[in-house]
Amino acid sequence: MSSRRPPIAGRFTAEELALAGRNRGMPLEALRHDVTPSGLHYLLIHFDIPDADESRWQLSIEGLVEKPRVFSVAELKGLPSRTVRVTMECAGNGRGQLSPRYPSVPWLEEGVSTAEWTGVPLHAVLGHATLSPISTEIVFHGADRGIDAGVEHYFARSLAREDALRDDVLVAYAMNGAPLPPQHGAPLRLVVPRWYGMASVKWLRSIQALDRPFDGLQQARGYHFRRVAGEKGEPCTLMRVNSLMAPPGIPDFYTRRRIVEAGAVEIVGRAWSGAAPVERVEFGLDGHWTAARVASQQHALSWMRWSFVWHATPGEHELACRATDAAGNTQPFEPPWDLSGFGNNGVQRIHVTVRA
Amino acid sequence: MSSRRPPIAGRFTAEELALAGRNRGMPLEALRHDVTPSGLHYLLIHFDIPDADESRWQLSIEGLVEKPRVFSVAELKGLPSRTVRVTMECAGNGRGQLSPRYPSVPWLEEGVSTAEWTGVPLHAVLGHATLSPISTEIVFHGADRGIDAGVEHYFARSLAREDALRDDVLVAYAMNGAPLPPQHGAPLRLVVPRWYGMASVKWLRSIQALDRPFDGLQQARGYHFRRVAGEKGEPCTLMRVNSLMAPPGIPDFYTRRRIVEAGAVEIVGRAWSGAAPVERVEFGLDGHWTAARVASQQHALSWMRWSFVWHATPGEHELACRATDAAGNTQPFEPPWDLSGFGNNGVQRIHVTVRA
Repeated sequence: MSSRRPPIAGRFTAEELALAGRNRGMPLEALRHDVTPSGLHYLLIHFDIPDADESRWQLSIEGLVEKPRVFSVAELKGLPSRTVRVTMECAGNGRGQLSPRYPSVPWLEEGVSTAEWTGVPLHAVLGHATLSPISTEIVFHGADRGIDAGVEHYFARSLAREDALRDDVLVAYAMNGAPLPPQHGAPLRLVVPRWYGMASVKWLRSIQALDRPFDGLQQARGYHFRRVAGEKGEPCTLMRVNSLMAPPGIPDFYTRRRIVEAGAVEIVGRAWSGAAPVERVEFGLDGHWTAARVASQQHALSWMRWSFVWHATPGEHELACRATDAAGNTQPFEPPWDLSGFGNNGVQRIHVTVRA
Repeated sequence: MSSRRPPIAGRFTAEELALAGRNRGMPLEALRHDVTPSGLHYLLIHFDIPDADESRWQLSIEGLVEKPRVFSVAELKGLPSRTVRVTMECAGNGRGQLSPRYPSVPWLEEGVSTAEWTGVPLHAVLGHATLSPISTEIVFHGADRGIDAGVEHYFARSLAREDALRDDVLVAYAMNGAPLPPQHGAPLRLVVPRWYGMASVKWLRSIQALDRPFDGLQQARGYHFRRVAGEKGEPCTLMRVNSLMAPPGIPDFYTRRRIVEAGAVEIVGRAWSGAAPVERVEFGLDGHWTAARVASQQHALSWMRWSFVWHATPGEHELACRATDAAGNTQPFEPPWDLSGFGNNGVQRIHVTVRA
């Protein structure tokens, strides 16, 4: 995003708080679930949830296609479907840990979840319209409209043709076996596995083929890694390698500080990467790192479960976790700097008090 | 709660932000729905969501009863059930608007929702155990444990015997026609219509009859209206009369300021009161108040829909709404002061820019 809003240091603004109240993180104890229970999946809603009527909703396929098409939701539901289990993370997850912060949703670390999405593979939907050979970019337009960085627009994002045609990209109409809820894009949304969540356009109402890069705000200016204001930057694409653990023990209501009983404590977490399978997770105790047990991968597009039996001794401790993927990417010990707070995959640290 | 945490003025703390990210408000555009879609209902979770196994869950009825009983969830599901549509509001809704603020979940105004709950009337459950004639207070113990105000405890609340025996109080196992999700108390929770949400104990695992007031932290110290620290205060009970509208037009992403097109704009909102039916809603435009249209009440325990056709003229405007119930209670123009930020039913105000 362009920097019309000055960066923030110190405490959180009323605007950040309002965004945190509207949008929703996944409470980290929900990491115990392979698939995040419905209603606990994180939410990032740029504008308002549109008032959608499924019976009248239309998805148009237009632009550089040989046979422009309009689908009703019922027509799409009649096509062969596929269900994929997908871990999705907000590109801004972890933004709230940076200082100064970009003024946006101040996620701490809870902007990630896993769901089972059912829908029609995008390549099949596009097949019905036949992409022109000269089309290189596919744009996805949502029905959610508002103002960002001073520009009024409907939310829209694009994928390069080859990314759009991957088998696992869906036009989804169901989530966890139930119809899409309004807040997750009902009646139709895109699901782009391995990418940060902004690619998975909700309330999808048109798909447009172009022979040039899409210049919409959320594509050309938003969702770029930048170190300083004004630079062109690099687009946010695949999710960086990352991992989290469910905080052990019991919390204090306000501070969320954890109290743990001494003895054997099973630490359970998840690890994921958009670039390659997770290969290794290490558990960190007071700065000392040990390999954790990583479950075998059952679902290629979903996070992996890891665990570690910690023999907790009385006193104050810092727990951490750190994943490495098969492409050799490892989480950094400190949050990587980004002007807009994108892609923060710095290791999670949890302070606990162990009681005798 | 006792004041071990000093009050906060100005920007929001990291602890408040973390609570806003974990807990969940209902985005106000969801006021368009009579029943809040699953996953959009507000959430206030004091500690962690327990890891509950429905097949092994037991609800015990104990204390001053003639036939102590233990129910499995399957046994409860075999008893005659009832479904009630209930508007529930967090006692701390609106806390984030006060200054100084009590350090807790900093709701702005989004801590309210409506759901259809299915379960067994509590009086029928208690009937199976036969309350002793000397029992005067019924305590509800949850499985969620943590520390608040320095005291470690399981969340627990009580009702006076006559309040507990009302027809519409349920031991619920379903929400909006589906099994309770983990975050709403699976597999069993209490639902106490007309009361602020703290009465509707989640993850319910025992019900205990006493012949004296319950002295648990969340009953005897927490959830009291107090003007200053140290006073005994008055317990929070029924929801105060309140109303909200869905903000019209489109938002700016960060500031949530609204842009509205000039012309006729239908403003839609909801109004509710725990004490008596809502009798009147007024729509306020720049300080001038006009009666809104209030839909006839179909569900006695649910919010009422109201609407107003506003002929929007270009410029800056402040919209507001104000409900009055049949007991003569009216929302105050300014947030009522409470040390812990409970019961804020001050009128909602929305600033909009109308474009020609």
